[in-house]
Amino acid sequence: MNHSSLVKEVLDEYSGLTRSRMLAYLPEKEPKAYLYDIARDYPLRGGRGLRPSICIANAKAMGGSESAAILSAVSIELMHNALLIHDDVEDESELRRGKGTLNELHGIPVAVNVGDTLILMSFKPLMDNLEQLGSGLTFRILKETMRTSWETAEGQAMELGWRKDNVFSLNERDYLRMVAKKTAWLTIIHPLRVGALIAGKDDATLDALLKIGLFLGAAFQIQDDLLNLTGDPAKYGKELNGDIAEGKRTLMLIRLFKQATKVEKLELEKIFFKSREARVEDISRVRAMMEDHHCIEYARAVAHGMAGAALHEYEQVSEYRGSDRDAKFIEGLIHWVIERN
Amino acid sequence: MNHSSLVKEVLDEYSGLTRSRMLAYLPEKEPKAYLYDIARDYPLRGGRGLRPSICIANAKAMGGSESAAILSAVSIELMHNALLIHDDVEDESELRRGKGTLNELHGIPVAVNVGDTLILMSFKPLMDNLEQLGSGLTFRILKETMRTSWETAEGQAMELGWRKDNVFSLNERDYLRMVAKKTAWLTIIHPLRVGALIAGKDDATLDALLKIGLFLGAAFQIQDDLLNLTGDPAKYGKELNGDIAEGKRTLMLIRLFKQATKVEKLELEKIFFKSREARVEDISRVRAMMEDHHCIEYARAVAHGMAGAALHEYEQVSEYRGSDRDAKFIEGLIHWVIERN
Repeated sequence: MNHSSLVKEVLDEYSGLTRSRMLAYLPEKEPKAYLYDIARDYPLRGGRGLRPSICIANAKAMGGSESAAILSAVSIELMHNALLIHDDVEDESELRRGKGTLNELHGIPVAVNVGDTLILMSFKPLMDNLEQLGSGLTFRILKETMRTSWETAEGQAMELGWRKDNVFSLNERDYLRMVAKKTAWLTIIHPLRVGALIAGKDDATLDALLKIGLFLGAAFQIQDDLLNLTGDPAKYGKELNGDIAEGKRTLMLIRLFKQATKVEKLELEKIFFKSREARVEDISRVRAMMEDHHCIEYARAVAHGMAGAALHEYEQVSEYRGSDRDAKFIEGLIHWVIERN
Repeated sequence: MNHSSLVKEVLDEYSGLTRSRMLAYLPEKEPKAYLYDIARDYPLRGGRGLRPSICIANAKAMGGSESAAILSAVSIELMHNALLIHDDVEDESELRRGKGTLNELHGIPVAVNVGDTLILMSFKPLMDNLEQLGSGLTFRILKETMRTSWETAEGQAMELGWRKDNVFSLNERDYLRMVAKKTAWLTIIHPLRVGALIAGKDDATLDALLKIGLFLGAAFQIQDDLLNLTGDPAKYGKELNGDIAEGKRTLMLIRLFKQATKVEKLELEKIFFKSREARVEDISRVRAMMEDHHCIEYARAVAHGMAGAALHEYEQVSEYRGSDRDAKFIEGLIHWVIERN
């Protein structure tokens, strides 16, 4: 089986498993109209289930069991959905998984309150796992979860600040530091490490997973941002080119600011000082400049380099040496992240 | 010492204590400009420290120690500040404790992200208390904290829904159910119960405190809403009459909808279908109707009745029978809540 079929198969299996357990944490009770029915919306829209699948697969690859990992996987998926709700508010996004965002459908006040409810709900499965995992491991996972949330909020703050202050003088290091916090922790590092903790691994293994996760998380985010520019409109669930309209500091935009001529820089500054609505008419111009300066090829090359580094770190981890299906999934994921569309 | 001097003295003492321990949970680190400096803002603006003081006083009144209670008090104050940030976003409020709200000063995206960070931060002192309280009690308090957060979010959802759908047909029971969730849990019930848990009390005591808290919490919210109409502008840190502009379903407004003549009802519906900005010009008209129908006296009488019921429940609790200063503070609080201005 090639790695992309394996990745698809394992994602389907573990995300299905996670979804069925997650439903119990999304109550069908009052107040429905402005809270619990809306809280179920994003989770029920589907999504690949990347984060919970990484958690379950890594627990198993390192010698733990699916049943010990499943509630942590549910927690991670709930936190992810909660933060999507608030991200969509913060980015004024209109589409999510092919439908209107909660802020678009129900307004900002309701979306903020529903997000709060889901953030707090994400801790419940961890508490419910106390009997199976014991208090020591449960506390350790709770602490990891809080650390991950702060890393994510810090990354989000950096990105919001750049947009708010309209910062143009950013370099690759700024970008990678932001992306490590905003994306890598919750998407890759945390699921890998929680899986390892459940399998009884120690700090040395957690450190190795931090490295894999940092590289793979960066590759994942760059690829995600590339899809916003080049994705298939029929498959992509968000607004194509929405990142340019939002003024999001992607690696491609940071590269463009660096490579642009003086005249182009002035033009870009003018474009990014406009309101989001007004900037929509400049999208094709920004795209054209990105192509002139090979920013898309550049970002694609960086993503490949990051995935290569992740693969190198993967090969250093002794627990992955074997033909185990779950270890092969983690390896396959590193290829899949930059090949997906 | 009369009860209002005692209440003031204990609030000053315990809120000062809480504030000094809370500072350690508000890091001075990067990213400062869009996260941690802003996260410190509301907590540093002061406030009475009602919630942490109730927690510490009740722990001591029931035989626990200040040192066992202090980190739970810090957690409660952090959660309160976090939810204030999101409440201000949801209510589009402009003033908080005499200064601009975070949404006013930094925009909605930053305010939402800072609120998320503080919500999560509020769990940290509880985890740090593990060694002192042991894992059983720590888990119990974590679960109480999560329950309280959901009750609060449910109450917030009810209120947002009433405003969003412009609901006029509400009665006192609807109001009291909403206020029990939105206000009583986090403001009174939770601090009382966490204090009791720290003092080693069982479910029978927690049930009695639930009753005190429901009555006292309702009295507190009604009084809070009365102050929005009748408070001293120099002392009140928010916009006077802001509740009418926001269309907030206070007991006074619910009473007015019920008591208004048919003609007045049509006028009121017209007023509350306007935008918030346009409604500002109708504030004095709504106030006049409230006075015509004695809605303010009515709400004041209900608040007094609620405080009386709280006092009755207080007297049933055997742990409070004595001349203990902390028990006297809880009793004094019941008087203070409806006398404060």
